[in-house]
Amino acid sequence: MSATIVEKIFSQHCKRPIRAGRVVMVPVDAAMIHDITGPLAIRVFGEMGGERVFDPERIIMLFDHQVPADSIPAAENHVFMRRFADEQGIRNYDLREGVCHQVVMEKGKAAPGEIVVGTDSHTCTYGAAGAFATGIGSTDMGFVLKFGALYFRVPESILLEIDGTFGRRVGAKDLILSLAGDIGADGATYMALEFTGRAIREMDMAGRMTCANMAIEMGAKAGIVPPDATTWGYVTERRAIEPFDLASDPDASYRERRHYDVTDLAPQVAVPHNVDNVVDVTEVAGTRIDQVFIGSCTNGRYEDLEEAAEVLGSADRFAESVRVIVIPASRTEYLKALRAGLIERFVEAGALVEAPCCGPCMGGAFGLLAPGEVSLSTSNRNFRGRQGSTAASVYLSSPATAAASALYGEITDPREV
Amino acid sequence: MSATIVEKIFSQHCKRPIRAGRVVMVPVDAAMIHDITGPLAIRVFGEMGGERVFDPERIIMLFDHQVPADSIPAAENHVFMRRFADEQGIRNYDLREGVCHQVVMEKGKAAPGEIVVGTDSHTCTYGAAGAFATGIGSTDMGFVLKFGALYFRVPESILLEIDGTFGRRVGAKDLILSLAGDIGADGATYMALEFTGRAIREMDMAGRMTCANMAIEMGAKAGIVPPDATTWGYVTERRAIEPFDLASDPDASYRERRHYDVTDLAPQVAVPHNVDNVVDVTEVAGTRIDQVFIGSCTNGRYEDLEEAAEVLGSADRFAESVRVIVIPASRTEYLKALRAGLIERFVEAGALVEAPCCGPCMGGAFGLLAPGEVSLSTSNRNFRGRQGSTAASVYLSSPATAAASALYGEITDPREV
Repeated sequence: MSATIVEKIFSQHCKRPIRAGRVVMVPVDAAMIHDITGPLAIRVFGEMGGERVFDPERIIMLFDHQVPADSIPAAENHVFMRRFADEQGIRNYDLREGVCHQVVMEKGKAAPGEIVVGTDSHTCTYGAAGAFATGIGSTDMGFVLKFGALYFRVPESILLEIDGTFGRRVGAKDLILSLAGDIGADGATYMALEFTGRAIREMDMAGRMTCANMAIEMGAKAGIVPPDATTWGYVTERRAIEPFDLASDPDASYRERRHYDVTDLAPQVAVPHNVDNVVDVTEVAGTRIDQVFIGSCTNGRYEDLEEAAEVLGSADRFAESVRVIVIPASRTEYLKALRAGLIERFVEAGALVEAPCCGPCMGGAFGLLAPGEVSLSTSNRNFRGRQGSTAASVYLSSPATAAASALYGEITDPREV
Repeated sequence: MSATIVEKIFSQHCKRPIRAGRVVMVPVDAAMIHDITGPLAIRVFGEMGGERVFDPERIIMLFDHQVPADSIPAAENHVFMRRFADEQGIRNYDLREGVCHQVVMEKGKAAPGEIVVGTDSHTCTYGAAGAFATGIGSTDMGFVLKFGALYFRVPESILLEIDGTFGRRVGAKDLILSLAGDIGADGATYMALEFTGRAIREMDMAGRMTCANMAIEMGAKAGIVPPDATTWGYVTERRAIEPFDLASDPDASYRERRHYDVTDLAPQVAVPHNVDNVVDVTEVAGTRIDQVFIGSCTNGRYEDLEEAAEVLGSADRFAESVRVIVIPASRTEYLKALRAGLIERFVEAGALVEAPCCGPCMGGAFGLLAPGEVSLSTSNRNFRGRQGSTAASVYLSSPATAAASALYGEITDPREV
């Protein structure tokens, strides 16, 4: 009986064939909690009478949203979580390693065929590793912490066949923004997006993570890239695991199959105040901006910083009128960027380079906007008020478009720099 | 008639001999405002009917306390100040350049014989450049912005003759902490501290800035280092100015002359909750710490980071139990540290290196402490609640002591590392 990759993953976990639509209790391979959603999960765990977590080795804890603690309650949350980690023998990466999704991936905590949950909506990022990964609420996580399992309705899949080759300074972020624009914010609600095709096969892990990361922006339960040599190369560098075959059957049953070609794709921009409000950069070029943020779990990897630096090129400085905030997604990515000279270039050009964290993406800790201000951000959400005032505007783009725009103080087509 | 250096500076500005105790209206050579105190000063300027500032060239504006904006009101303050700078033709360094006092110094905005005011208590830092520099309130600054002058009661001076040579891993911060301990938090109220003697003559500008910076911690109106070749070397690199002689007369009248010798000085630590609560590091060695902050206008210069890195040496990592936050005091100091490999070493060792700003010093934006937590900080104040919870504790030390303590997770004598 043919099956999608997602059905196969659930079948393997349930040890019997499971099709989309079924509701099953499945064991999870790993669970991630961070400083915003973790404390509530831990409290729910306690209320459930939880004494020991199901497996401390399978729980990843870290602090990335409010680090270093931006308020006394945040500091208290950190203390509370550190104590829980100590009591339970959980490895707590604390605030040193970076943004949760990047850290889970680079520590090899997600692998093909696994089911990984996290109390963050962008947990779907790990679909880039061929895992079924999804964000869950803190209450569900309280249950997971105790039982190591959770009920799921197995999602139907949408097959995305992405052909073609990206043009100069166009890439994964432009693709996923264009998909969000095409599919819409609720166009894939509770489904899995399966990314295939030449453009995906030729995409590096950083780009695949960008794509999988934003599956949730179409309402998807998960995004997944069937594992190939690129996936296994990444995963086996990080964990002792033997590669195996895992792919949808050719005649698997999809809710829908959609074809795209990236060859003529222009740089994309999501305009206020929704992620699926997507236009070609040419339509908004010239829009004055006050702040540019290059970072986040969507676009804070070395490859993203390199893309931004390539656009910066030999220009002396970013525009005087723009605050440019650059935040590598993890300590590892920071060190890669530093050793490649990128941090130096950004600081020389006037950027603020902050220690790895979520930064302005969530608009809580720093980089907030005043009423009337405009931000261009490589992150994943531009909802009203997301980066500060509800009277501010947030645009989303690729690192290349962000860097080009930072150079000129207005939204700028990176192909024209 | 003999005079102290401070009396000479006031005399030159008033164009007649002025002695300590006189109240005079004097023109100021420069005025600095930052993002916390600037908005009120600008409002007062408006209420005084101010239309044009006295001289936009003499006003330095920058944002360092809440950057990138840590709240919507902070973002609004920034917008308000940017607009004022635009209207008035004031050079606004905005949030790119770093901590106000470091930026004033490195841009050559303070020079021997000048009177410089700033709406920040640690404006006295510029005494390291041989200027009479003092912190003023925002209301006074409103007056200064309009008239370029301010009333002062000319302070009496205390002559500090500091002899001897510092031992290994003992330096300027230990000296100024020991002075604070000896003189007391109100021991120099409204006086000028004049730093002289071999230990000062042999001290680099970074060390002199550390000393002058903390004059206010003894209640002093100003701290001043009479200009010598070191001073002029620093200033003439930054501004077209001809060196001239400026020193107290040998028979000048001081409120008091105090002699010290640093030869046997141990590393000093100010213990909670007052800056003058100072002990030898040996008395508090072993105190468990949760956070270390290396930075601020007191100790965020290249030399401070180098001192910390020297103690870190070839150790792999700071203690797992300590959050280490390193913040270079300015973009210039950041780049110096980066090019010397220090940023890489700190990040490798697990530190969070943030973009130049005041950071946890003020305990507003980030790096806040939970109740019961303990911080060791190279900054200048350890008042109750200064870095977060009023039930937290802040110790102050040199960068060497901070780095040694970060390695072991407890207050540690850097001479024993």
